[in-house]
Amino acid sequence: MATVPLIPYDEAKPEARAVYDNIMQTRKVNDVNNFWKALAHSPDLLKHVWERAQEVMKPGALDAVTKELIYIAVSTANSCEYCVHSHTAAARAKGMTPEQYAELQAVIAMASTTNALATNMQVPVDKQFDQS
Amino acid sequence: MATVPLIPYDEAKPEARAVYDNIMQTRKVNDVNNFWKALAHSPDLLKHVWERAQEVMKPGALDAVTKELIYIAVSTANSCEYCVHSHTAAARAKGMTPEQYAELQAVIAMASTTNALATNMQVPVDKQFDQS
Amino acid sequence: MATVPLIPYDEAKPEARAVYDNIMQTRKVNDVNNFWKALAHSPDLLKHVWERAQEVMKPGALDAVTKELIYIAVSTANSCEYCVHSHTAAARAKGMTPEQYAELQAVIAMASTTNALATNMQVPVDKQFDQS
Amino acid sequence: MATVPLIPYDEAKPEARAVYDNIMQTRKVNDVNNFWKALAHSPDLLKHVWERAQEVMKPGALDAVTKELIYIAVSTANSCEYCVHSHTAAARAKGMTPEQYAELQAVIAMASTTNALATNMQVPVDKQFDQS
Amino acid sequence: MATVPLIPYDEAKPEARAVYDNIMQTRKVNDVNNFWKALAHSPDLLKHVWERAQEVMKPGALDAVTKELIYIAVSTANSCEYCVHSHTAAARAKGMTPEQYAELQAVIAMASTTNALATNMQVPVDKQFDQS
Amino acid sequence: MATVPLIPYDEAKPEARAVYDNIMQTRKVNDVNNFWKALAHSPDLLKHVWERAQEVMKPGALDAVTKELIYIAVSTANSCEYCVHSHTAAARAKGMTPEQYAELQAVIAMASTTNALATNMQVPVDKQFDQS
Repeated sequence: MATVPLIPYDEAKPEARAVYDNIMQTRKVNDVNNFWKALAHSPDLLKHVWERAQEVMKPGALDAVTKELIYIAVSTANSCEYCVHSHTAAARAKGMTPEQYAELQAVIAMASTTNALATNMQVPVDKQFDQS
Repeated sequence: MATVPLIPYDEAKPEARAVYDNIMQTRKVNDVNNFWKALAHSPDLLKHVWERAQEVMKPGALDAVTKELIYIAVSTANSCEYCVHSHTAAARAKGMTPEQYAELQAVIAMASTTNALATNMQVPVDKQFDQS
Repeated sequence: MATVPLIPYDEAKPEARAVYDNIMQTRKVNDVNNFWKALAHSPDLLKHVWERAQEVMKPGALDAVTKELIYIAVSTANSCEYCVHSHTAAARAKGMTPEQYAELQAVIAMASTTNALATNMQVPVDKQFDQS
Repeated sequence: MATVPLIPYDEAKPEARAVYDNIMQTRKVNDVNNFWKALAHSPDLLKHVWERAQEVMKPGALDAVTKELIYIAVSTANSCEYCVHSHTAAARAKGMTPEQYAELQAVIAMASTTNALATNMQVPVDKQFDQS
Repeated sequence: MATVPLIPYDEAKPEARAVYDNIMQTRKVNDVNNFWKALAHSPDLLKHVWERAQEVMKPGALDAVTKELIYIAVSTANSCEYCVHSHTAAARAKGMTPEQYAELQAVIAMASTTNALATNMQVPVDKQFDQS
Repeated sequence: MATVPLIPYDEAKPEARAVYDNIMQTRKVNDVNNFWKALAHSPDLLKHVWERAQEVMKPGALDAVTKELIYIAVSTANSCEYCVHSHTAAARAKGMTPEQYAELQAVIAMASTTNALATNMQVPVDKQFDQS
């Protein structure tokens, strides 16, 4: 169920279709995922998000798998079902091992616990952390 | 401001003081951060959190900096002020470079955007992501 | 799947049925949505929520569509699947255009990005914003 | 307190300074807010966020005040202190009246209540909402 | 710092002042907390929130302390600094013991961990939990 | 749909199977819930979470039902579908009455409203709440 139609290639506007083509060529796949088909109702937003994702997720000071781990962490904390699924799959496709996945989960679980405790006690930030 | 007193070493119960000693020895510091001084009102919880943190954050399939990046990502999405500060400092202490920090931010920003869009459109998860 | 039964009209308690009647008359429909059928296990809560919703969502200093856009924005940030769906439908029923929807999404996406960045850097609030 | 230095104009890199100049000219002010001074440690991210914000927040199918109301709603649900402050100020500067502000709050409060209730009961989405 | 003025008794509108009087009489105090002074810019919202809070928080099937513990739990998960502080104080005033507080924290920490893990793995809900 | 396989007893590793046995004996059931079957891909994490849950959720200064109410409150605020379902079932199994459930919901709804309002106005915390 979605709040918008999932637009197939044949029904997409030319500007959206151009983005679909770019996604399929870049990822060497024959179809695009539901996220892009949903976003295609707004070709501008589709184009912006795809281009920005390409820019941000390419390997740089952080490698591709590390970037996906960070993406999964944010998506989990934000309770985004779709994003958790798609980026867990992406992380595996880029080489995340089962051992790395288990440690990712342990860190997410740990952070969730201390986040809750620090917020619950409203612990004042130690002076030495300040960089401003 | 906190909801609990920040308990200094001299006023801590013996069980809490033992954890303080362990923290100071492990980290080679002369005092413990506010988080631990707040948690010390419950020595059981203090001990559990410290021991689990040691276990989870040690280098394994993921290196120490990567674990801190994940911790920062979760803490940011959970809006935990204290945790964002303490783990950004920890990441730097463990070697996070300015370039890695900037890329971490770009990934967090990107994930926040697509999380919001996927949730906003309630995009159905693609079948091929299922592992169950 | 729900944590409570969805109570049909015939099985609802009289106090709940009175609210169902009010909803159906107000909205000129023959049945009430699942949200109300779920809430009907507590007629007090059902009555309070329905009455308050009527009061809050009626056009005033803000028109009806603008109120629904705000509702969608909050529901998206809170990851409420049901609320995103029902208020996107409500916004359309009240006249939200596809262009407005696309801009709503762009603003939600933008806000999600800067929310994450401001929290990630713990940017201190500029003095001039203070109204207290 | 921030996790990064707030970089004043004189110490900003040329690429960051160019963005500062653009912000000051666009907004007809003599200095930029802390958010931009914090983001300036990464001139790329600074430039991207500023340019995208300009694009997204300009009046279109939704007027400038409505866009700020949506921004405030998202920032509130995401607990972003800085963003709530800066966009409440922006909304007022663009013409938000006290009456609109009070209604914005009432809608945010209402949505927060029904978000919690729908999630708490895990109400299944009514079939008729589906657009996919 | 606040986005609105904190309105003292002498400057409050008559409708707001009536609520202040009611709060001070009910709680046997000489002044009202900042939350009410902030909300007083909208006497309607102030009146609604105060009256609803009185109704909801009075002892019923759940005692007064249990209600405050639930309130703290929600406020922690929602990262509401003000609410965490005011309801931790309220819980203590109504009799919450240090032992209960420590256990509250342990449950919040535990729930935060399993929430993150269940969301991270997108665990399908067991059929037997369904009540709809 | 899940990001990991749900591992049945016969396919679980010995360390995971030992935890399954412990769960089934403790709860006097013939199978374990999906959450544990998902977590079983990491026997270490499975063991840690189960043992900690046993420790935290046992009656102490707070009774078993109160702990489940707090768990539901956190899970609702964190939008964890699985956790809301499993802990609502657990609360009922431990004796939560329909009246207690309705009041739990009313408190969660109330807290969600004031959380949003306090955050929206960024109300400064009253000095007298400080315990640090």
